[in-house]
Order: sequence, then C-alpha cells, then structure tokens
Amino acid sequence: MNKPKEKFSEDKMKKIISLAKRRGFIFPGSEIYGGLQNSWDYGPLGVELKNNIKQEWWRRFVHARADMVGLDAALIMNPQVWEASGHIKNFTDPLVECKQCHGRFRSDTLDDPNKCPKCGTKGSFTESQEFNMMLETYIGPAREKANIAYFRPETAQAIFVDFKQILDTSRKRIPFGVAQIGKAFRNEITPGNYIFRTREFEQMEIEFFIKETEWEKWFEHWLGEMKTWIKDLGIDEKNVEYIEIPDGERAHYSKRTVDIEYKFPFGQKELYGLAYRGDYDLTSHMKESGKDLSYTNPEDPSDKFVPHVIEPSLGVDRTLLAVMLDAYTEEKAGDEERVVMKFEKWLAPKKVAVLPLMRKEELVGPVKEIFITLSKQFVCDYDETGSIGKRYRRQDEIGTPYCVTFDYDSLEDKAVTVRDRDTMAQERIKIEDLGEYLKKGLKG
Amino acid sequence: MNKPKEKFSEDKMKKIISLAKRRGFIFPGSEIYGGLQNSWDYGPLGVELKNNIKQEWWRRFVHARADMVGLDAALIMNPQVWEASGHIKNFTDPLVECKQCHGRFRSDTLDDPNKCPKCGTKGSFTESQEFNMMLETYIGPAREKANIAYFRPETAQAIFVDFKQILDTSRKRIPFGVAQIGKAFRNEITPGNYIFRTREFEQMEIEFFIKETEWEKWFEHWLGEMKTWIKDLGIDEKNVEYIEIPDGERAHYSKRTVDIEYKFPFGQKELYGLAYRGDYDLTSHMKESGKDLSYTNPEDPSDKFVPHVIEPSLGVDRTLLAVMLDAYTEEKAGDEERVVMKFEKWLAPKKVAVLPLMRKEELVGPVKEIFITLSKQFVCDYDETGSIGKRYRRQDEIGTPYCVTFDYDSLEDKAVTVRDRDTMAQERIKIEDLGEYLKKGLKG
Repeated sequence: MNKPKEKFSEDKMKKIISLAKRRGFIFPGSEIYGGLQNSWDYGPLGVELKNNIKQEWWRRFVHARADMVGLDAALIMNPQVWEASGHIKNFTDPLVECKQCHGRFRSDTLDDPNKCPKCGTKGSFTESQEFNMMLETYIGPAREKANIAYFRPETAQAIFVDFKQILDTSRKRIPFGVAQIGKAFRNEITPGNYIFRTREFEQMEIEFFIKETEWEKWFEHWLGEMKTWIKDLGIDEKNVEYIEIPDGERAHYSKRTVDIEYKFPFGQKELYGLAYRGDYDLTSHMKESGKDLSYTNPEDPSDKFVPHVIEPSLGVDRTLLAVMLDAYTEEKAGDEERVVMKFEKWLAPKKVAVLPLMRKEELVGPVKEIFITLSKQFVCDYDETGSIGKRYRRQDEIGTPYCVTFDYDSLEDKAVTVRDRDTMAQERIKIEDLGEYLKKGLKG
Repeated sequence: MNKPKEKFSEDKMKKIISLAKRRGFIFPGSEIYGGLQNSWDYGPLGVELKNNIKQEWWRRFVHARADMVGLDAALIMNPQVWEASGHIKNFTDPLVECKQCHGRFRSDTLDDPNKCPKCGTKGSFTESQEFNMMLETYIGPAREKANIAYFRPETAQAIFVDFKQILDTSRKRIPFGVAQIGKAFRNEITPGNYIFRTREFEQMEIEFFIKETEWEKWFEHWLGEMKTWIKDLGIDEKNVEYIEIPDGERAHYSKRTVDIEYKFPFGQKELYGLAYRGDYDLTSHMKESGKDLSYTNPEDPSDKFVPHVIEPSLGVDRTLLAVMLDAYTEEKAGDEERVVMKFEKWLAPKKVAVLPLMRKEELVGPVKEIFITLSKQFVCDYDETGSIGKRYRRQDEIGTPYCVTFDYDSLEDKAVTVRDRDTMAQERIKIEDLGEYLKKGLKG
C-alpha cells in the first residue's frame, strides 16, 4: 500500500466514527464516566440500522425458508456446555505478567517479548500462562466453584444443545437449519478497532444440519447465500475477499472453511465465516451429556445418524461497520461538498424525512398529520429546525432516501416537494399520492 | 379462592408449560445437562411470539411517534453508573448462612427463621447480611477490584447515562422519550414461577423526559397508552389490576407509581410498572459524573432545567407469559375437545399453515410454490405429516389463524381450502386471490 491510500483509510475511519457519534449512530458507552474499554452504545439511528440488518437476515433465512427455524437461547448456559465444546480448556490467550508493575499482556502480541510495555522493565515477565477468555460470574448466593457460570462466548453451542428439543418439536427433516441472533461475550485482552472487536458483540448464526454425504453441495449453497447477502447489503464486491483456509490451518474437525474478509481501513479482516464442522459438536455433546442427539429418518428408522453441520456465522456489529464504510460518500453538490450515506434503501435508518418549510404553526400542523399517516407505512423522521438546505444535508448524512417538504403552496395545491437522496432531483407530488409514490421508490 | 379454582389455576400453569415445551415455544435451558436453575430458551415458536411483541412495541412507541427515539446500549457499563444509581449500595437481598451445611437463604423468606431448610439444624444461622443482586464479572486479564464490572440489573440507567448524547444528536425537544429493548440480569436467590422470575430477562422501557409542571398530564398519557397496549395484546381486562402505590411505599423520589398486576395462576403479580421518577436519576448522574445533564430550551436559553421523567417499564417475558395464559382455550370441536391458542392475529407466531392434503409429490410441488409466494407477505408454516385433521389440531394449538390445504381438486380448479382457526369454517379460495384474502383476514 502506498502512503496516500493509508492516509485516506485512516481518515475514513475517523470520519465514520465522528459521523456516527455526531449523528447518533454509535456512542462511546458510559461516556459521562469516561467510557469503559471499547464499549459502544447504539444510538437512535444505530439501533434502526442494526434492527434493519437483523430483521432482513431473519426474514430471508428463517421466514422465507421452509427448511429453517429460529431460536433465542439464554446467554448463561450450564458450564458443562463449555466443557463439551472445549471452551473451558482451549478458549484461551497466552498471558505474561510483569513482576515489577503487575501489568498483564498477551505474550504473542508484544513488540519486545522481553520488555514490559507499561513500566519498561526488562526481563520482568513471568512464564506465559493460558488465560480463559470467557466472562465468568457466579449465580446464586455463594461464591463457590459450584456456582461459577459463563456468559456464552458464541451463539452456536446453544443450537447444538437444544438440537433434539428443536427437532422433536418442529418436525423438520434433514436437511434443515436453526438460526439465532444474539449476544456473545469474550474477555478480549486487546479489544479495538472501534466496533470491530469488543467484549460484547452480537452474532447471526445458522447451524445447518445435513447428511455427511451432502456436505459439499450444502457448503456451496451457503457460500452462494452469503455472497448474495453481501451484495444485497450494498457492499462493493471489490472490498470483499473469500479466503479458503488451507489444510493444517483449519480446526481439526473441519474439511473446509472459508473466511470472508472485508477491506477495513485498518486492514483486511474477517467479516464472516463459513465452516463445515462435521459432526464434531453434536458428538461432543452426546459424549459429555450421555444423551442421544442422533437423527432418525421417519421414512426409514434404520437410517439413523448424527447430522453433520454447515455453519454460516455473521457478526452483526461488523456488518454494520462494513455497511457504513461502504455507504460513506463525499461528493459535489453544486458548489458545495456533501456527505451522503448511500445505504441501500432497505437499510436506511429513516426512510422518509417530513419537513415543514418553516417552523410556523400553519405548516407544522399539516406536516404532523402527514408524519402520522406516513409513519404507518415507513420509518419517518421529523425535523423543523434550521434552513431547508441544512436539513437536506442532515438527511443526506444519515442516508434518508426521501425528503418531503411542505411549504406555503402546499396549503393551496395539496402537494409537497419530494427530494431524492441520490439524484437530489425534486418532484412535486400530490399528498394523496405520496404513500404510493414513496412505496414504489423504496421498493426499487 | 375456593379449591376447584385453585386446582384449575395450577392445572393451567402446568398445561401452558407442557404445551410450550411440546410445541417449541419455551424449552428448559441446557436441558441435556440437567438445566440451569430456572433458565429458559425460546424455541422456534417462542422466538416468533417474542419478536412479534417486541417489534409491535417498537413500531408503536418509537416509529409511530415523532417524540420518541430508540437506544440499544451495552449490557456491561462503567461501574460508576451503579454507584450513582444506588444499585451497588441498595440493590441487595438479606441473606443468612447455615454454619452447619453452608447453605445460604433469604432471611426474609424462611418459614422458620431459626431452622435451616437444607440440613434441618436449629440455631445455626449467621447474622443476616446484605447480598448484592448484580451479576459480577471481571473484564481484562487481572482479577482485581479495578476490573470488576456488572451486567446491568435494569435497562433504564443506560438511557439516563446516554441522555445528553441522545439529546444532542437527535435534536428532540422536551417532551420526548427514549425507548430501549434489552436484557437485564439479577442474581435472584429465589427465581421461580417459570419465566416470571429469572436471572436473565428482557425489558421494554421508556424514559419520557418532561417539564416538572407537566408530570401529571404525562403520567395519565402513559397510563392510557399502557392500557391500550394491554388491550391490544388480547389480554382480558378482568385479569389485570392497576394498583396505586400509596405514600410511604413508593421510592422516595416518586410522587406517583402504578403497579400493573396480572392474575397469574400462581397469584396476582406485577406485570408492568409505571413510575414518576422526578429528576432523581439525571441529578444523581450529574453529581457522580460531574457532567451537566440539564436541558436548555432552544427558543429560550434562560429556560434551562433538569428534565423529570415518567417511566413505563414492561417485561418482555412476563408479557409473553400473560399472552399465552390469556390465549389458552379448551373447547368443543364437534365430538372432540380441542386446544386453541387464541392469540390476537398479529401475535400469532405463524400466520398461515400451508398443507398438502397428502405427502404425494404431485401435491407437495405446488404447495411449496404457494409457500414461497405467501412467505413474501406472511410468516408461514409448512407441515406434511399426519392426517389433515391432526395437522389442523396442531395449528390450533400454536394459534395459527389460517390453514391452507391443497388437495387433488386444487390441481383442477386452482383453488385451495382455507380454514379459520376460531370458527373452524372452511372456504374454497382461488389460489390467485389467496394473498389478498389472507391479508384482509389477518388485518381485521
């Protein structure tokens, strides 16, 4: 990479963070108390954008498919789940402690493995120790080992643990999948890069249960679905790379894994993952729990087997960040520069801004009526402060596809001005036709 | 209460729990490992029902109102938040420990305050100690006091802590509100009554910011909104009681609190709460953080004040339980008894069941096409196993408003049989008119 591009990238990240804070997409969490180590809150616009991502994912992968059902499991599960999955033993980072200042560091990320980056002392480190990354707590009144519980470090295991209950109650046949959206927690020693790596994050995961013989076909199917999803998010395919993880670097149970990476300004990093997990998880839980988690073909009871699994795993927060980066646009608007978030219309946090030309009672009244009517169909914004030009810019900056302005002529001609975010073209539309006009525009 | 009624109540609870487990609404969490102390997972139907509740609440109270914005804050906040809110000091239960068996118990709920209910020893209790109910964890690598963090025991404080950021970015004027849906955690010593009291639960909360002088008007407004909400959930008003909390029993900062109680089979218990919180929370956070959280009227900068707050607080899980209890119906269907979940149509987890009369290829093919078409508009179920009568009963039991059956005649007349959940009436509808027919039926 050459210098100017790096500069641009760094700038772009700063611009996104600034816009997100200034406009209410993403705030530093607990900011009035100085924040909390890379913790972030989704503000009024961020929560809408995030909900749009999650709801469309659910609509597409749960509601529109006859071979999928949903789940919403508790965040705290029986600790034996994490024994079986290997998380208690293996979900660790190597840590050293400085004997001088007692600072702790990931030994594999130290610039100089011999020098403490906090106090500068040389040769003061302890032996490297494995540190478990799960967030631990106690449930019940006693702080005893028996009461230790963990906040789940991933959503996937809940699906495996509930597999039999889901199978029995949903009457699905193999192949079928279980989808879940929910929070997961990792006590990262080095969280960072904004919302890219945080201790608390949200996942959208599917475990798709299949016959072993069909794994290649279903792997291809899900790779295709993920490609389409990324395209429909409006993410430029030039910014995405599909990395085949070679033999020896995959988890031992996986015959194929594809990392889907996005070219973030801070480097090309994992956005999504697609893994063939074999029957590893169900088999592990069968062993640890002593319960039979195999599937029996209702047509042919002799056809009994432990299903294999294809897992498309998507991070909600990373999706949101990639979508914001890809939508961010600076362009000429007449003599001025404008910033536009060119979200796909279905992603835009607000679909329509309803604006009185001025904050005068005779205009505000009818505008509020229009707001109420349109709000039954679309997520609307209402803004009455500042010049109309400034309000258009504000809507561009949050990616609102349409601005509807009610002016003094509107009182006479019962029509409003509709402005298009991308073309900035303005059209005069009869108020009675407004709903249909916007519906059509927002669809296409 | 007379005996038979108690019996019925107990039975009803058992029936709901059984139906919820059998049909995939609610499973015991981590069940293959023997569960985890009153932890529950929402299965394929439960997650749909829960999402319908949450999405309608959001649509109504955030999207349809010009005076409301949303928030989705992190579950782990800076511990100073809980200092300011009083949770670190006061969010406690009194506990005693048995010196003999080391069992711990809530001293205020012991049958005999002198006898251990676990080992039976008398006079073995320690002095009662206050036990904090927040779930504690450590973030970062060191298990030091400085790294203690808590999972939030309520969603409300996040709104207060972010108030200034939301105000500045959303450009709202007083009165306006902030709504949030999210998880909260309480280390209950005695969780119980199914999903009524659990350590991990979900809240839908609004903090509505007002001028002090207008609190009574806005309190009435929100009481009205909550009544309408309960009615629209399909909950019989006979099962709900509005309890004015008298002087001396309210929190010291509240001039009015109404507990909204539901007649659960295990007793009349709090479903929702509505409280006037004064300016207590914002003032506490101003003191603890040193930040100015007051509001300045943009029209008149001398009009500067700390907003007062009306808080309508709703539990998601309790809503779902009340909705299920109220929907549960046993009735005659010809010579048989049937169980019907008479959910309001908008609440039903599945809107339409699409059924081939038999599992024959020539029927299944066209049915799947119908499923794909209808799934674009409605959440559909597909079921091909068992007799058509049995499948109708199954759909009744999960509250699906319409069953669409494709039979051999359908191949000829391009029409299907549509069965109504409540009347059990059947109508023959042209496939091309099906979408419109169902849309109309589901609306009203």
